[in-house]
Amino acid sequence: MDERSAAQLSAAEAAQRIREGVLTSEDLVGACLERIRQVEPTVQAWTFLDEDLALAQGRAADEYKRSGQAIGALHGVPVGLKDIIDTGDMPTENGCTLHKARAPRNDAAVVAMLRAAGAVILGKTVTTECAYFSPGKTRNPHNPEHTPGGSSSGSAAAVAASMVPLALGSQTAGSTIRPGAFCGVYAFKPTHGLVPRTGILQLSRTLDHVGLFARTLEDVALLAEAVAGYHEGDADTRPRARIAFRETLAEEPPIPPMLGFVKTPHWEKADAGTREAMAELVETLGDRVEEVDPFVVPGGEPWAWHKTILEAEMAANFEREWTNGRDKLSEQLRNQIERGREVRAVDYQRALKNTAAQVESFDALFTERYDAILTLAAPGTAPKGMATGDPVFNVLWTLFGMPALSLPLMQGENGLPLGVQLVGRRNYDARLMRTARWLQEKLT
Amino acid sequence: MDERSAAQLSAAEAAQRIREGVLTSEDLVGACLERIRQVEPTVQAWTFLDEDLALAQGRAADEYKRSGQAIGALHGVPVGLKDIIDTGDMPTENGCTLHKARAPRNDAAVVAMLRAAGAVILGKTVTTECAYFSPGKTRNPHNPEHTPGGSSSGSAAAVAASMVPLALGSQTAGSTIRPGAFCGVYAFKPTHGLVPRTGILQLSRTLDHVGLFARTLEDVALLAEAVAGYHEGDADTRPRARIAFRETLAEEPPIPPMLGFVKTPHWEKADAGTREAMAELVETLGDRVEEVDPFVVPGGEPWAWHKTILEAEMAANFEREWTNGRDKLSEQLRNQIERGREVRAVDYQRALKNTAAQVESFDALFTERYDAILTLAAPGTAPKGMATGDPVFNVLWTLFGMPALSLPLMQGENGLPLGVQLVGRRNYDARLMRTARWLQEKLT
Repeated sequence: MDERSAAQLSAAEAAQRIREGVLTSEDLVGACLERIRQVEPTVQAWTFLDEDLALAQGRAADEYKRSGQAIGALHGVPVGLKDIIDTGDMPTENGCTLHKARAPRNDAAVVAMLRAAGAVILGKTVTTECAYFSPGKTRNPHNPEHTPGGSSSGSAAAVAASMVPLALGSQTAGSTIRPGAFCGVYAFKPTHGLVPRTGILQLSRTLDHVGLFARTLEDVALLAEAVAGYHEGDADTRPRARIAFRETLAEEPPIPPMLGFVKTPHWEKADAGTREAMAELVETLGDRVEEVDPFVVPGGEPWAWHKTILEAEMAANFEREWTNGRDKLSEQLRNQIERGREVRAVDYQRALKNTAAQVESFDALFTERYDAILTLAAPGTAPKGMATGDPVFNVLWTLFGMPALSLPLMQGENGLPLGVQLVGRRNYDARLMRTARWLQEKLT
Repeated sequence: MDERSAAQLSAAEAAQRIREGVLTSEDLVGACLERIRQVEPTVQAWTFLDEDLALAQGRAADEYKRSGQAIGALHGVPVGLKDIIDTGDMPTENGCTLHKARAPRNDAAVVAMLRAAGAVILGKTVTTECAYFSPGKTRNPHNPEHTPGGSSSGSAAAVAASMVPLALGSQTAGSTIRPGAFCGVYAFKPTHGLVPRTGILQLSRTLDHVGLFARTLEDVALLAEAVAGYHEGDADTRPRARIAFRETLAEEPPIPPMLGFVKTPHWEKADAGTREAMAELVETLGDRVEEVDPFVVPGGEPWAWHKTILEAEMAANFEREWTNGRDKLSEQLRNQIERGREVRAVDYQRALKNTAAQVESFDALFTERYDAILTLAAPGTAPKGMATGDPVFNVLWTLFGMPALSLPLMQGENGLPLGVQLVGRRNYDARLMRTARWLQEKLT
């Protein structure tokens, strides 16, 4: 096998070949680095990449395996990390001028989990400024004149461009699902609290999620198994039984799933071609899908709750940056923090309370009828220019902490990828993946 | 045994006699009612008491026992409930004009737990308005010209006056420890999250605790065993192993405990006689106590955090009352809500974050050296008049969610009771009781 094709292997295939001894981790890492050399000048997905450090990890993985000890599910497989995820051996700059040359002492919880599974940390990928909206340098691998989406721009683009089979990002509004859809990869935002956020830049405890990127559904499951778990540093995680994502994914659904198609009150914000593509998809699914309006109160109230919570919590989490260097922040971020500093505690608490109340009604939707919600991943394909696009079709599921998957199953008239978003019941993440596989098989 | 003496039994003794068949629950309830008839005109501890309903519960307990089925640890024993704790068969008016004749459909979680343990719910005890500061009608049983303290005024007074052996109250500032100290009973505020608050008037999720009152330490342990536990309706409770309070209480400490005497920055607010009495007690304990200053930052910062959190959360929890009937609230409560409506979300979150940071340093204190903190329960004996007194020596342990016990081990020059407060490490509640027993034996 030539090096180019090793970079294009799925993580599951690569791990299997390493396990069987027909591929070394060093060769796989080398193939990824070679691919990066080819496409990085255009895509610009990486903010830190030390080839020697990456290759040394690959060699160490190969040596460890030769010792005959048991190896983890990701042994020797490279993973990219959004540069808001702390690494003890690489800088973590959060896309923020004020955090230039920041060198964390410890790995984030998810990084320790990845290393325990045998993964090679290939490097750090470009994020928008503090995982908010101001774009980094990354371009869409399908067309460099278009945004890859954000804030997990580099992670989505790197996976899409076959620079690395797996990457982690984050989502506080739409920062995983949106770039995943724009770049045409699988993107997964698990249930809130399923993956620990210890050692990751905090914007909002209520809204922050770790996000996963891969080029196959099986790879999403493989990565999810590695990073789901309890960590004492994240008070929203809970000790619980290990989730067998891959096993559930491989199962046949006991009965054909039923999907609830949710337009949301923002349907008209999607462009005409996207609405049409979705309508066709719904038609193809026939009696396995029906339109449903799960909103207790009509209108955009949950979007307003998301705004209040995000502003208030960001203002609290960026107090130091605001006090010591607000002039070094983008105007966009500074304005967000300033709005947040004016939010009253009663309004913040009311938004939290309303959210908790409405999320129950979404749970009921699943118990009563639907296996998953079918909805847009974004208002259209990746927009032209650097602006990272609109998270309007993502914030609801972020707010409610529900698991969401973007599947690269559609294409826009401009040839750019168009994601299909499936949303599941909280804590039924593996079942959501199983439903996604069913949908994918039905459509392809 | 005559009825008067049955009312004066401890709960443990009464439960034992009922178990042995030498006392019926009906007779015990009757004895309590007789005692109430004698002293209630002066003490005024009850806001709802239906003699027939109480006696019927006693008879039902006796009948159940005669059926030969297994009985709970509190079988047939009467308990009084602060009138902010919901009962499905009695009104719960929260001491609030706006909640007049409020009739909850369900028992609060602790009430269901008490009934499962076999307890008789004797009646509802007087609370200040919404468990805040505006006093109810209750008087101190030791001298009716003095306050019983608040906000759990009726529960503390009813237990002190032998109207009922056990009662539940609550503490958000100092509403259990302070009335316990003023009335000369044992008062226990467990670790935050140990006892579920589902179905109890919420002032502040962060600060609200259920409080326990009894006339012996063993009774505190017995009651704690009945009400500690997980409830899905209280997100701060956790499933955990049952705590054997009585067993731990009966154990000898493996080595003589060491106490850390904490004056707090408010020491000068205590009256001279109280400071002197405490100094004597410290002297008596010799090398088993040493003064310690656990404050990371000098001054009263944690008291300010408590104020911010309480104002902000009360404002959020009393939005309906404020909107629909603020003119029917006391000026004191209305002002508190109005202050809370102005608190900014950043200040609220900063107070929460600072609290979480400092509480760790208190945990370290225990691991390093001390079994418990010894501190004042109140600035002095119960003040004259209706005002319920100053919670300044309680708010810190409420804020940090640490278990606190008031022990009726001292007396003021005016002959009124003076409490000694012991504070333990979070989640080491049973050990705190064991240390309390050791202290009590050492001093008496």
